Amino acid sequence: MAAQTGLSIATVSRVLNGRANVAPHTRDRVLSAMGGLGRQAPRRRGDRATGIFVRCPYVLTDYFGLIVSALAEALEPHGLQVILNAGVSAQRERVLGELTGRRDVAGAVLILPPEPGAELVRLRDRGFPFVVVDPRTPPPRNIAAVSAAHFAGARMLTAHLVELGHRRIGIIGGPRDWLASENRFAGYLSPLADAGVLQAPELTRFVAEPTVELGHRAAAELLDLPDRPTALLAFNDKMAIGALRAAAERGLRVPEDLSVAGFDDIELAEACRPMLTTVRQPLGEMGRMAVNLLLRMLSGHRLEALHVELATSLVVRGSTGPV
Amino acid sequence: MAAQTGLSIATVSRVLNGRANVAPHTRDRVLSAMGGLGRQAPRRRGDRATGIFVRCPYVLTDYFGLIVSALAEALEPHGLQVILNAGVSAQRERVLGELTGRRDVAGAVLILPPEPGAELVRLRDRGFPFVVVDPRTPPPRNIAAVSAAHFAGARMLTAHLVELGHRRIGIIGGPRDWLASENRFAGYLSPLADAGVLQAPELTRFVAEPTVELGHRAAAELLDLPDRPTALLAFNDKMAIGALRAAAERGLRVPEDLSVAGFDDIELAEACRPMLTTVRQPLGEMGRMAVNLLLRMLSGHRLEALHVELATSLVVRGSTGPV
Repeated sequence: MAAQTGLSIATVSRVLNGRANVAPHTRDRVLSAMGGLGRQAPRRRGDRATGIFVRCPYVLTDYFGLIVSALAEALEPHGLQVILNAGVSAQRERVLGELTGRRDVAGAVLILPPEPGAELVRLRDRGFPFVVVDPRTPPPRNIAAVSAAHFAGARMLTAHLVELGHRRIGIIGGPRDWLASENRFAGYLSPLADAGVLQAPELTRFVAEPTVELGHRAAAELLDLPDRPTALLAFNDKMAIGALRAAAERGLRVPEDLSVAGFDDIELAEACRPMLTTVRQPLGEMGRMAVNLLLRMLSGHRLEALHVELATSLVVRGSTGPV
Repeated sequence: MAAQTGLSIATVSRVLNGRANVAPHTRDRVLSAMGGLGRQAPRRRGDRATGIFVRCPYVLTDYFGLIVSALAEALEPHGLQVILNAGVSAQRERVLGELTGRRDVAGAVLILPPEPGAELVRLRDRGFPFVVVDPRTPPPRNIAAVSAAHFAGARMLTAHLVELGHRRIGIIGGPRDWLASENRFAGYLSPLADAGVLQAPELTRFVAEPTVELGHRAAAELLDLPDRPTALLAFNDKMAIGALRAAAERGLRVPEDLSVAGFDDIELAEACRPMLTTVRQPLGEMGRMAVNLLLRMLSGHRLEALHVELATSLVVRGSTGPV
């Protein structure tokens, strides 16, 4: 695309990544040069299909519920409605194969889909328009995906701790097979490496599910080490709440004796004491961006900017302090 | 049916078409001759309609999201799917009138519907099967509704505080026009009255929206009274979190100087310190019960127990203690 537009790769990349430092006419040039996915899609669907299949194979908590609410609110003005497939039981259902045969469904938004990339590619190859939100594995090329800047967010967070003097940081990662977990983990390591610290394996844990309970258990293990960490970084706010609990049980004051940080900035992060330092994910914006991409596919526009990463921001509150 | 009821065909037709110019007892006669609510409904709908319109005019937080998730999981095994209308913008939409004309919709679940009872009655009179979850106003007779036992739950909670010796209890009620708020408020007053205490108006506040912020503000007012209350009862857990914050800002220890209690038992209630004493609402069960009632309507069964109230339970944690 750089060749096609005569712009530098860096500029095209800035546009595709939604960065601010791009002139409007440059952005337009890139966007209009974009072609690809979705062009054939609308012709395959019934003209009167108004349903958008929204799949969220998790309970609609303050995290997933906010994304789904944003999707519903953004689709409604376009006369499109959410056909919802949600809850943990949705993980066991094989629904992708049937989507193309449904005349009531115009397209889909798949949140953290458990299916392997190959299955998503098959769906795309059949001309079915869909967008993946928060992909679980690296999304295949030409599959539209919206996610938060996990790596950049995690890096900001760790840089904040390193600046406060922390070097011995316990990391409680998320599920090992989630892209978000992998990217955040890489972001945690980066500022430590810059400070000349190689993360010790003994200070690292991963959980199967990012819950308060498993966060509590992993934090307990790390805090019971002979040489305990001075800070704990949790994959998400729920696990950080579990870490706060483990600290309180051991009489450790936060942030005086231990810094704790989460990720997501859900409502819980402000309900606990001290309030959590965390990374804000633009959950509502992720939903709206997914709808935006999907609408462009449905109207036959070409989309090159397939992987959209929305900026995250560091939110410093009371749970982190000097080492 | 005209023969069966002894009414004119025109009258029966008016009832079946949901016209207004029918006396209530005549309408009841026709409906009961039909074998009750919902019997005719399946015949009016397309046989292949598999959509259940789920309307939740609020963001899907840890409260509403749990109900909607339960609905989706309970409908799926029956080959029914959720057509979701959610988010705050859904409050402004007038959708009930269009439901009966939709061939893809077999029935509906309306969560905390903002429409007046008369509009719900009109929908019922047109033979459209639906269930109301958490009715905002007293549900009309013959409208299927599922709610939690607000009164009983609130009474248990206040009885717990009265037992701990509290008599001067600040009450932060919810929106005045919500049935849940009215019923909980009545439940708060009952054990106080039993203990010979008439709740002082100065100790009572109501909020327009049950948020952390408004709970914080109302609690601040109550705690700044010359003779401050020894306990605060909040309409829900979020407002109780706000109350904890107001207490902390004034250097009041919970529960030593002040007891605080919420309602709902959402995840927040265990994330704060101290953890909240609260009343557990069976949110998942409310969703499943609504599906159960709806399925019975869709299969033409008569429903006699139209207003289902599910038990709530007292959950005592660290935020309440002796006066």
